[in-house]
Amino acid sequence: MLFVVGCALADEVLPSWNDGQTKHSILKFVARVTDQRGPDYVAPAERIAVFDNDGTLWCEQPAYPQFRFGMDRMQTVAAKFPELKNREPFQSALADDLDGVIKSSVHGLIELTAATHGGLSTGEFDGVVNNWLATAKHPRFQQPYTNCVYRPMLELLGYLRANGFKNYIVSGGALEFMRPWTEKVYGLPPEQIIGSTVKTIMEMRDGSPVIVRQPEIESINDKGEKVLSIQRVIGRRPIAAFGNSDGDLPMLQWTAASRGASLCVYVHHTDGEREYAYDREASTGRLDKGLDEAKARNWTVVDMKRDWKRVFPFAESEATRK
Amino acid sequence: MLFVVGCALADEVLPSWNDGQTKHSILKFVARVTDQRGPDYVAPAERIAVFDNDGTLWCEQPAYPQFRFGMDRMQTVAAKFPELKNREPFQSALADDLDGVIKSSVHGLIELTAATHGGLSTGEFDGVVNNWLATAKHPRFQQPYTNCVYRPMLELLGYLRANGFKNYIVSGGALEFMRPWTEKVYGLPPEQIIGSTVKTIMEMRDGSPVIVRQPEIESINDKGEKVLSIQRVIGRRPIAAFGNSDGDLPMLQWTAASRGASLCVYVHHTDGEREYAYDREASTGRLDKGLDEAKARNWTVVDMKRDWKRVFPFAESEATRK
Repeated sequence: MLFVVGCALADEVLPSWNDGQTKHSILKFVARVTDQRGPDYVAPAERIAVFDNDGTLWCEQPAYPQFRFGMDRMQTVAAKFPELKNREPFQSALADDLDGVIKSSVHGLIELTAATHGGLSTGEFDGVVNNWLATAKHPRFQQPYTNCVYRPMLELLGYLRANGFKNYIVSGGALEFMRPWTEKVYGLPPEQIIGSTVKTIMEMRDGSPVIVRQPEIESINDKGEKVLSIQRVIGRRPIAAFGNSDGDLPMLQWTAASRGASLCVYVHHTDGEREYAYDREASTGRLDKGLDEAKARNWTVVDMKRDWKRVFPFAESEATRK
Repeated sequence: MLFVVGCALADEVLPSWNDGQTKHSILKFVARVTDQRGPDYVAPAERIAVFDNDGTLWCEQPAYPQFRFGMDRMQTVAAKFPELKNREPFQSALADDLDGVIKSSVHGLIELTAATHGGLSTGEFDGVVNNWLATAKHPRFQQPYTNCVYRPMLELLGYLRANGFKNYIVSGGALEFMRPWTEKVYGLPPEQIIGSTVKTIMEMRDGSPVIVRQPEIESINDKGEKVLSIQRVIGRRPIAAFGNSDGDLPMLQWTAASRGASLCVYVHHTDGEREYAYDREASTGRLDKGLDEAKARNWTVVDMKRDWKRVFPFAESEATRK
């Protein structure tokens, strides 16, 4: 394992990050917890970092990609679910009314996924996700959604991994909507993904056990539930946490309450030109209380416009931007 | 990482296992899946092994240690729970009637743990478990419960780890009853433990978030639920599974349904002299359907009396037994 320590290599690590306070706060933290002779040293096994996904690792505007996924699926299966058609978010989904769907928030997100994918085995669901990702495109960037990930954050995942960290996604998005692609895109294997879940049952099909998804929500992995799922799955308190909305605040607070050194980072969407600019009034990814708390507690706030040389991997022309 | 391949070293690996069909079936499987040029090669990331705990890694007779833990706690907190005193398993627990408690099975086990430990933070609960383990002793062996683990299984955990496997416990026992000691005893960190859970909530205490246990069951990790929790937490199908009761059967079936090579092992308690002899009629750790299925499908069945040179780490005098 390669350990890159300190700020001496600041120009070589995190190349998509502009030099400045934000980048240095990250480098400094990593240097502190990996310095074996320093007072803040943390053993590798305890170097747990947790990342929100929507809006922290990939673009969540104009709507969570998973909303589009559920809406597309709804067109296919609507006839099978007449009882849903007058209920939100299904009514809006059927009318192809994205704004209506967005209003249903994370709960609607999981409900749409659960209802439109019940009865599928986990293997079949993987196939549905992969097929959708192969053709669906982000409406503005005209790229596959899995290309609309933040290049600076990909570098950060790799940098932490190289320094002995174990990175987890802790997202409000559906667990099995992420796993089919997170290893390829983020280098994060299925056991390092935590998300919302639908109920599942085990049943025998052709003499073989299969796990079958039920059209019912099991857990919404948002706000305090993120803390509880971190404890349930990981059983260690993270020392670094990255989020972008108020839904991530408890996870950051939990991380900050660590006895030793900790790093709490908010990604602040300030760049309407290259991505989207939104915070306190947003219906998707609202960052209001979190912004105040970050200021009060001196957490690191990434100003996307100022701190990132480029946003997306496909945006080669941004590379020279300072 | 050290890779020990093949049967040539059979005398040096798994030294507490007698030479024979059982030991060879394990060595042969590991050799197959680690042979990079062979048809059954499995990449290290996919080498997931799952282990039941009670009766598979440590002694579950005359009762699950966690029952004793709950009963001991009940004496302390009984006055606080007058509404429980006429309900099982609490009535039997208060009467110190172990047989009565045992009848309540895995559900009673978790209920007793939940009810007698509600209101504690996860950190406080760790302390309660550690304090109990420091003084409680197995009634027959007069050893701390964490000494009453099977030495051959400890060797097996280490052998698999040395061959690139990632071992998980998938137990009906309570998650947070295991985590305080599984790393020290089995070398298994908290994120590799899956168990039954009680409901938890996050609340603020003195301005800091804490996770507080509720006196309510969240999930009973037994039978089919073991398969579902493996998918939820690990997200990969195991290639090796170890159990000792019918409660482990779905987990073994799920493992056996793998597309590639798999190893399914039942630990059969055949040694009333050194440990306990029980199977089809047992109220704790019943192995009935599983024994039939193991025979029908040619799974590996460990005959403890025949296959293990010694059972417990403290039983030095057994070392010469063949």
